Amino acid sequence: MTQCKAYGAAEAHAPLVPMDIDRRAPRDDDVAIRIAYCGVCHTDLHIAHNDWGTTVYPMVPGHEIVGHVTAVGAKVTGFKPGDRVAVGALVDSCQNCAACADHDEPYCAKGPTTTYNGIDVLTGERTMGGYATDIVVRDCFVIRVPEGLDLSRTGPLLCAGITVWTPLRQKGVGKGSKVGVVGLGGIGHMAVKLAVALGAEVTVITSSPGKMDDALALGAHDVLLSSDKAAMAAKFNSFDLIIDTIPSRHDVNSYLMLLGRGGMLAPVGALDLLEPIHGALLARNHRSITGSLMGGISETQALLDFCAEHQVLPDCEMIAMADINSAFARMQTNDVKYRFVIEMASLA
Amino acid sequence: MTQCKAYGAAEAHAPLVPMDIDRRAPRDDDVAIRIAYCGVCHTDLHIAHNDWGTTVYPMVPGHEIVGHVTAVGAKVTGFKPGDRVAVGALVDSCQNCAACADHDEPYCAKGPTTTYNGIDVLTGERTMGGYATDIVVRDCFVIRVPEGLDLSRTGPLLCAGITVWTPLRQKGVGKGSKVGVVGLGGIGHMAVKLAVALGAEVTVITSSPGKMDDALALGAHDVLLSSDKAAMAAKFNSFDLIIDTIPSRHDVNSYLMLLGRGGMLAPVGALDLLEPIHGALLARNHRSITGSLMGGISETQALLDFCAEHQVLPDCEMIAMADINSAFARMQTNDVKYRFVIEMASLA
Repeated sequence: MTQCKAYGAAEAHAPLVPMDIDRRAPRDDDVAIRIAYCGVCHTDLHIAHNDWGTTVYPMVPGHEIVGHVTAVGAKVTGFKPGDRVAVGALVDSCQNCAACADHDEPYCAKGPTTTYNGIDVLTGERTMGGYATDIVVRDCFVIRVPEGLDLSRTGPLLCAGITVWTPLRQKGVGKGSKVGVVGLGGIGHMAVKLAVALGAEVTVITSSPGKMDDALALGAHDVLLSSDKAAMAAKFNSFDLIIDTIPSRHDVNSYLMLLGRGGMLAPVGALDLLEPIHGALLARNHRSITGSLMGGISETQALLDFCAEHQVLPDCEMIAMADINSAFARMQTNDVKYRFVIEMASLA
Repeated sequence: MTQCKAYGAAEAHAPLVPMDIDRRAPRDDDVAIRIAYCGVCHTDLHIAHNDWGTTVYPMVPGHEIVGHVTAVGAKVTGFKPGDRVAVGALVDSCQNCAACADHDEPYCAKGPTTTYNGIDVLTGERTMGGYATDIVVRDCFVIRVPEGLDLSRTGPLLCAGITVWTPLRQKGVGKGSKVGVVGLGGIGHMAVKLAVALGAEVTVITSSPGKMDDALALGAHDVLLSSDKAAMAAKFNSFDLIIDTIPSRHDVNSYLMLLGRGGMLAPVGALDLLEPIHGALLARNHRSITGSLMGGISETQALLDFCAEHQVLPDCEMIAMADINSAFARMQTNDVKYRFVIEMASLA
């Protein structure tokens, strides 16, 4: 057991404050990591504030973690000190169910262990996230950061990136695919960049005329203003996939109408109720609404490899650890393009 | 042009009455059919009553049509007089779009021509359905009734059957698949029989304790009472596919919870709003809600071939044409096990 510096919440709605936390001595299959950067996800804020009623305090957020290996357990063969590595939203799963056998760890039948506010299955202790100088993670949940991928901008790929990569891959998006992206925040901007890199024709669908230039700057080929009924009608039945990143209750029927035959709506943002959906819109064109949490570990590795090859990286604003509370406040008004990343050297 | 006897509605909410209608002289690619039987579908009733506001009168319902070829056009090579044939809900499509090229005629980009209350693309005339002694249909919309398939019970396969066959095939249901069926009417009872014949473990999910024996009699392996919360909870995360045949607005969240990883809910009955769906239930287990209208013509042919091979046939109550109005009234109270079929000899 070693102590490390961290930033966490002692109770709900309290600001994050410096705290010291324990990290276990590496088990045989563990990798110890010195954290260089950690992305800031909306979920960090929700769990820190106990918005979902599941938080146990004290808690340390952070699940877009990148850094370097400092030590490995006796049976670890895949990593060595100095390696560039990353950890996303999960740090363990049963490795014994059908989902785990399919490399689909987020859907582990026993429930995967989340990177923070989760429960270590061996000790029963609460997991603590990546707003910290160090972390110790089971080797099969550690992802390699390929050569050529900018370490400082890799973090958001681990959550925002993989969240949209899953529906893009499920739908087989490639050259000529028509992809719509609703909402242009941290997740939406990754959807645009990844879909473009996969060769798709990408349209950002937004209610904000002010975001049209931003969308084109990110590489989108077109922008559709959802309040423009004629423009929307002109695009009925035309998309293969629409990634909907709106994080709250909303009406998806107007997006369903945009989907062509076999088209899929992926509501990756709203873990909330959706307004009533019209069954006839699903039946027509054989449309579907498909949810997903995120990809598994091997799919996340594939994403990082793809991003290195195609130089797909999020737009990040670097912050010091001490700036986290003002960053949270700015996130709540969507005042970031498009993802905060903590330089962890500022904590050490 | 020839006249034939039919039963139809002269105006909304009027009873069906005998009428004479014109059938065109066979075009080069047409097949003329003497109708032996026609199944009675809920859609017949909805369109006859103008429930969807789209009906043009006079109208003749009927899209579960079986009979024998009486004549063929000059260029028809696939059929000859005397052949046992069937016609479902569609009688034409553009044959020129991507959907038609994929044998996915229900999703024809120009809109397929429905068997009744549709518009003939060549003449602009309203199509008239199978509550008639005869019909003339373009050859590529005529389906062969295989040897060994009971002609008198084939009709309901053309609509009720193909409606559930589509999600069963899309989901690749086979031996060991776990399939749930919600609702036990004309469509639901076909879902049970087809899923059982495909080798699935089939559970009927019903709010009516009185339907439990019926479900088992149809071949279901288990029955789940949706009001029994403990029984429902015991089946969380266990189904690959749930075919939901409820025809009106309802809450599907309790069915979503029953779906396992990658599970699919197919709401084939409700062309209406669904109560708000919880996004988190879609995300967890990577679940989807997928709509569909029905399979294309080649898929319908495959269904009839499958039903002949496995002797899967609907439970039918035979009626005379003159009984149609009382049959409609009984359908509205679900008083039929499970599908009315008109013996068309009663009209001639």
